[in-house]
Amino acid sequence: MLVLDGLGGLPDHPNSQTELEQAATPHLDKIAKEGTLGQMIPIQTGVTPGSGPAHLALFGYDPLSISIGRGILEAYGVDIQVGTKDVAIRGNFCTVDQDGIIRDRRAGRISDEIAIPLVKRLAEIKISGLEIDIRHVNQYRFAMVLRGDDLSADINDTDPQDTGVRPLDPYPRSAAANKTAELVREWITEAGKMLHGQRDANMVTLRGFSNNPGLDTFGERYQLSAGCVAVYPMYRGIATLVGMETIQFDGVSPEDQFRAVTKAIVSNNYDFVFVHVKQTDSYGEDGNYDAKVKAIEEVDKAIPKLLQAKPDVLIVTGDHSTPARMQSHSWHPVPLLLWAPDTVRQDHVDQFGERECLSGGLGTVNGKDVMSIILAHAGRLNKYGA
Amino acid sequence: MLVLDGLGGLPDHPNSQTELEQAATPHLDKIAKEGTLGQMIPIQTGVTPGSGPAHLALFGYDPLSISIGRGILEAYGVDIQVGTKDVAIRGNFCTVDQDGIIRDRRAGRISDEIAIPLVKRLAEIKISGLEIDIRHVNQYRFAMVLRGDDLSADINDTDPQDTGVRPLDPYPRSAAANKTAELVREWITEAGKMLHGQRDANMVTLRGFSNNPGLDTFGERYQLSAGCVAVYPMYRGIATLVGMETIQFDGVSPEDQFRAVTKAIVSNNYDFVFVHVKQTDSYGEDGNYDAKVKAIEEVDKAIPKLLQAKPDVLIVTGDHSTPARMQSHSWHPVPLLLWAPDTVRQDHVDQFGERECLSGGLGTVNGKDVMSIILAHAGRLNKYGA
Repeated sequence: MLVLDGLGGLPDHPNSQTELEQAATPHLDKIAKEGTLGQMIPIQTGVTPGSGPAHLALFGYDPLSISIGRGILEAYGVDIQVGTKDVAIRGNFCTVDQDGIIRDRRAGRISDEIAIPLVKRLAEIKISGLEIDIRHVNQYRFAMVLRGDDLSADINDTDPQDTGVRPLDPYPRSAAANKTAELVREWITEAGKMLHGQRDANMVTLRGFSNNPGLDTFGERYQLSAGCVAVYPMYRGIATLVGMETIQFDGVSPEDQFRAVTKAIVSNNYDFVFVHVKQTDSYGEDGNYDAKVKAIEEVDKAIPKLLQAKPDVLIVTGDHSTPARMQSHSWHPVPLLLWAPDTVRQDHVDQFGERECLSGGLGTVNGKDVMSIILAHAGRLNKYGA
Repeated sequence: MLVLDGLGGLPDHPNSQTELEQAATPHLDKIAKEGTLGQMIPIQTGVTPGSGPAHLALFGYDPLSISIGRGILEAYGVDIQVGTKDVAIRGNFCTVDQDGIIRDRRAGRISDEIAIPLVKRLAEIKISGLEIDIRHVNQYRFAMVLRGDDLSADINDTDPQDTGVRPLDPYPRSAAANKTAELVREWITEAGKMLHGQRDANMVTLRGFSNNPGLDTFGERYQLSAGCVAVYPMYRGIATLVGMETIQFDGVSPEDQFRAVTKAIVSNNYDFVFVHVKQTDSYGEDGNYDAKVKAIEEVDKAIPKLLQAKPDVLIVTGDHSTPARMQSHSWHPVPLLLWAPDTVRQDHVDQFGERECLSGGLGTVNGKDVMSIILAHAGRLNKYGA
């Protein structure tokens, strides 16, 4: 499963091409011709997905009934593992006046250089009954994981999402969270003391208190041993949540990644490999249409390396659309390509692009049904009913 | 509703045509041009349907919430009717050694000639409190229906699906099934005695204990009087489950069947007729691409006979795909053709084939929504809301 993050796009100007249509993709076009296309709706019509739910859907989990909190995603993003009893939190540095009133929720978007030493100081805080793993994310953001007995993530954000007011209390939403809330309150008090008098950032807010949802794994759910090839920790983290192993590899380019996939499959360690390419989304978010086109072309050039793995089934898609023109994730359907030499029903389409996908044999597919298609073509599903 | 069993297919080799695309089908192409096409997903994306759930879906029933057990289907397959209080069972002859250990689960796939007299002997078994209807199916298979007071089908298979072990106990899964399980146990003991010393098959296993699910009928649900024209008893059986009458007719060819449909409709006995053609699936299961093509062509030749019925609405589809290349049912979507001269919105397509269906006006349709399309075009549905 090759996921080009934010793959779907929009024409840069009316009557022109999307990023994928514009890109020269001879290898993807060849497998599009040999395979079949469709368009994928990650969550629901009109819904713009975050990365967490979009990937959950691609992995076949119901993104509407499972919540992957912000805290978890941030923690995974800086390589902190989160056990099912831990509580993950996203933190922000902010500035408050002498009365404790928030003046800047993001502490003037302080630089990493300023923030990193502040996080180091926060890491010195000891709270009895808590093991705390805190790491800098970027600018004013940090992530924190609490470990201990009987912790609960059922706690309100302390970020009031406004200035001119004090940070909120870490309010426990249930009795089971009383103890954790009290420990968090102690930590915040200590953090306030540590940061007191600092010019750039003298307070913190906490949000996205969350648990590892304890999902059933790919092994349990699909009887697949699964691995993940991703450069960005957050995507390795989501893969870990569903029981995939992280496949180590050298380099960062799509070609490096695909070489690692082939190695992992050929050495017969994995039934399923998820490869995540980030650049397509990053350039989309930057509004850099040309760079997104080039990123797609770079993936295309490396496709032969991926085919050396001789997969029974290859899916190429995105987790969502990130049109450069919008500089953000969007709700637009995502191109979907299925290649499965033994069992695919070919359609008339011989190019990989948003408009071509509309005539594809897969039609319009829900994100969470993609795994069913993969499993069916891999001969991994039994017949339903007599 | 014309159902060509296993209609959907795959190209025989890459870049070639599916069975339906390959077949010369001038009459179907004509009604495809006059009508509109789509592709139908019987149960769910990626799911390969059995015949029972696939037909339930086509008849508008939710195949995921209704279970038609193996026992029921086998019983209907040999023309045993199953009342809502009866228990239907599929039986296998097997061979066991002197310790009762299964050596061959299918008794060497004994011939009908050997099995029929054995079934006759089993039919002599009397169990107090049970009326038993047992009939040979084919080779080592038989079907059995139990009638009596307070019977329950909530009983585990005795077939261990393995050799080197004894047949399992007919274990009751609920207290309500204790009595039935005891009676079945008695029957199995008697069967063992009767078969003792037989060389070809000296024991039986039982599986698929099932009830008639007591579905609401076509009359109750759609206010349609419905009939069924099918050569194979199993499909007449499924039709009976939803309250269709069996239409008797001479012959076995599609032309014979279509003549019967026209006669039934013209004589004004039925609002709805289900016609089931089996050959397309049989040749698919055999892996005989050419024969499946010919079977489709034979249906096509007979289409004018069907049109003599002057239906308001004609649906042509399959219950599932059976690509000759796979020699089995598959999950691939099924071609769907709607012809309804007064109300159809035509599309651009003028041929009936898998790839053409992708551009059809019906798009991708769930199996259980097909009846809604039929009812709408027949003017049988009211406006929803004011």
